[in-house]
Amino acid sequence: MFDPASLKYDANGLIPAIAQDYGSGEVLMMAWMNAEAVARTLESGRVTYWSRSRQAFWIKGESSGHVQRLIELRLDCDRDCLLVLVDQTGPACHTNRRSCFHTAIRDGQEIILTEPQNPSE
Amino acid sequence: MFDPASLKYDANGLIPAIAQDYGSGEVLMMAWMNAEAVARTLESGRVTYWSRSRQAFWIKGESSGHVQRLIELRLDCDRDCLLVLVDQTGPACHTNRRSCFHTAIRDGQEIILTEPQNPSE
Repeated sequence: MFDPASLKYDANGLIPAIAQDYGSGEVLMMAWMNAEAVARTLESGRVTYWSRSRQAFWIKGESSGHVQRLIELRLDCDRDCLLVLVDQTGPACHTNRRSCFHTAIRDGQEIILTEPQNPSE
Repeated sequence: MFDPASLKYDANGLIPAIAQDYGSGEVLMMAWMNAEAVARTLESGRVTYWSRSRQAFWIKGESSGHVQRLIELRLDCDRDCLLVLVDQTGPACHTNRRSCFHTAIRDGQEIILTEPQNPSE
């Protein structure tokens, strides 16, 4: 059986988790999990991070409604990074954009790639 | 002009960088950059990480030939994570698999999704 304790966590007990849209392949965000967040994500099917700023579990979308349903959890060869395939409801980013990675560097300038979604979308 | 110093680095001066295949959308690996690695990546077009184990710059593929040509560098809303769209030659993973994320958790078991590529591929 997979044991979340078998992953490699950093000095703060955290592992980076990359959320990717299962359908489109779009990388939506990166956040952090501790072993308990990994376990809760697998058990509940609701992607659950550890909020470093709030020092609390963060069930993605609990307040915003922009939940991430777990499709599949993957780990990398070093067991120190997670890839979380998700079914994302609405925008993943707190700026109301689908992805947090909405800024590109082009010709040395920062270019905004997407505008915030309409709340009704 | 974009200044790599404007990103948010951790206590070790590093920022996580997610490499994604520009064509397929596959997430290939996650590694770390410092400000100088970000600058070198943008200047050279060759994705360059900071190796925490070797404490040295790591021009991806320099020894293996499995280079990553930079297509576009993106940053997230918190400026503390990078998404690097790449043109990946050969496997990205040191196990000779295309992606480092080749293990999935299914029904509580670790499942290997892909086998190592033939060196001639």
